[in-house]
Amino acid sequence: MAITVVGSVAFDTVETPAGRRERCLAGAATYFSLSASFFTDVRVIAVVGDDFGPEQQKVFDARKVDTTGIQHRPGKSFFWQGSYMENLNEAKTINTELNVFAGFEPSIPASYSDSEYLFLANIDPVLQRRVREAMPTAKLVGGDTMNYWIKDHKPALLEVLKGLDVLLINDTETRMLTGARSIALAAGKIFELGPKILVVKRGEYGATAFFAPKRPDGAERMAHRAFHVPALPLEEVVDPTGAGDSFAGGFFGYLASQKELTPKSFRYAMFYGSVMGSFVVERFGTDRLQELTREEIDHRFKLFRELTHLD
Amino acid sequence: MAITVVGSVAFDTVETPAGRRERCLAGAATYFSLSASFFTDVRVIAVVGDDFGPEQQKVFDARKVDTTGIQHRPGKSFFWQGSYMENLNEAKTINTELNVFAGFEPSIPASYSDSEYLFLANIDPVLQRRVREAMPTAKLVGGDTMNYWIKDHKPALLEVLKGLDVLLINDTETRMLTGARSIALAAGKIFELGPKILVVKRGEYGATAFFAPKRPDGAERMAHRAFHVPALPLEEVVDPTGAGDSFAGGFFGYLASQKELTPKSFRYAMFYGSVMGSFVVERFGTDRLQELTREEIDHRFKLFRELTHLD
Repeated sequence: MAITVVGSVAFDTVETPAGRRERCLAGAATYFSLSASFFTDVRVIAVVGDDFGPEQQKVFDARKVDTTGIQHRPGKSFFWQGSYMENLNEAKTINTELNVFAGFEPSIPASYSDSEYLFLANIDPVLQRRVREAMPTAKLVGGDTMNYWIKDHKPALLEVLKGLDVLLINDTETRMLTGARSIALAAGKIFELGPKILVVKRGEYGATAFFAPKRPDGAERMAHRAFHVPALPLEEVVDPTGAGDSFAGGFFGYLASQKELTPKSFRYAMFYGSVMGSFVVERFGTDRLQELTREEIDHRFKLFRELTHLD
Repeated sequence: MAITVVGSVAFDTVETPAGRRERCLAGAATYFSLSASFFTDVRVIAVVGDDFGPEQQKVFDARKVDTTGIQHRPGKSFFWQGSYMENLNEAKTINTELNVFAGFEPSIPASYSDSEYLFLANIDPVLQRRVREAMPTAKLVGGDTMNYWIKDHKPALLEVLKGLDVLLINDTETRMLTGARSIALAAGKIFELGPKILVVKRGEYGATAFFAPKRPDGAERMAHRAFHVPALPLEEVVDPTGAGDSFAGGFFGYLASQKELTPKSFRYAMFYGSVMGSFVVERFGTDRLQELTREEIDHRFKLFRELTHLD
């Protein structure tokens, strides 16, 4: 089943202990869609400037990602510059230029409207909500956000949460959004806001999912409703950018490839998410996703099983 | 098979977001031995002062821990005061009083000499080495250390490492000891120093074990020789003190209870380690270990399986 993603298609300049890369193709929707494309059909909604040319288009085409929904506008694409020199788990933003993204008005191509899966990557919650409302028949809706929206646009964000099935955010955002001291307590609070599943992305420490109790008064402890997948303990992380979005792409891409969604599907989705995250950080930007094969994914899935399973 | 542990038996005053506790029974050897006692016979080597009375002795007796090797000296026991107010993953030391521990000369009771397992908890590496050499027939030897010994007593510590099969330390110590940027790279360096297994304790993020390649020139990537167990995502951590030592107790206690050691035994040991760590942090000091039952351990082991296993 097809999945539509709305989010940024951008250029990044990043500096990490492994080196520096200037203006590489990036953005949440880019990482998400390349990652999900190994599992299912992916459709993108975004906006780009004149600097997005045939070279960038080719990256999406090679993975058969539908880019009908990418608007081309005069000017420059969204640009982000960050450094991981001090902490590989958290980027320090050096510069952000919204450029054509400042006036982004997402419009959904008619050919996208039968998408059963929808992912609202980290953008203005007002736009996330608009896309969500324009696709009311989506069967499973996921979303991400960031500290900026939690801090200064909370009412709009709370409206988005009402329409989400799965919220994927990092630990800091989880605590910021709920004020809870532990992610297990935060999960309980987030279930009251709309999502039925919370996936907490924890960088080099992997990701933990919490599943809402079936009865809202479920007194069962959250630890009993959790599932954890580690990150692969790599010898070198070249560039952490896009790990979370590639995780989301693997997670939702795998789910969209399944005939039906069971608790087991979500556990497998967590593993495929971490598998995709483990690849993207091996090289700068989207380089690793561009050369990746399905065979490598299956092989690494087995490695994750060995990393975690007793027997 | 019996396990001998040498380390501190102490009193702690701790402050956490959940409250404050004055002078509770603590110390690495205490947490280790209570935890391991659920799996096998445990023998302790330590020194205590006049403040260690019948009330403290009863805690060890109730778990059938052999305390023949605990020396009683005039003066006060080792005392530590710490705070977790800012970070539950890392204690801030407010006060340390060595007291009778300053002149500690471990002596091994004759009745301990047939112990097939030996754990050298975090103490002066000169003493760790002395105990190791006095028990040359031990089948499996584990050890811990801390930043202080790595920084200022490295030559003595390197001598200890030569005699260890398993090194259990936290991530910061792993990086400090090797200078490596990732724990996977650190593992390769540590295998050159003696240990054949490195267990990296990562607080609320669980623990990752690395197993040395059979051939020293093994070019296999470390990620292929790793095993990970998460920590239980608890709603509240009351007191993180002793989590690492209780992990070590569960890990070695389980191994000592096995007829033979296989790769599978070590994976199970990782799980039992994390199970024991998850209990101890639920209450202050050793309170939870004192009231714990084997049934609760087995139940929680199942919970860890559900937390991590696909099928």
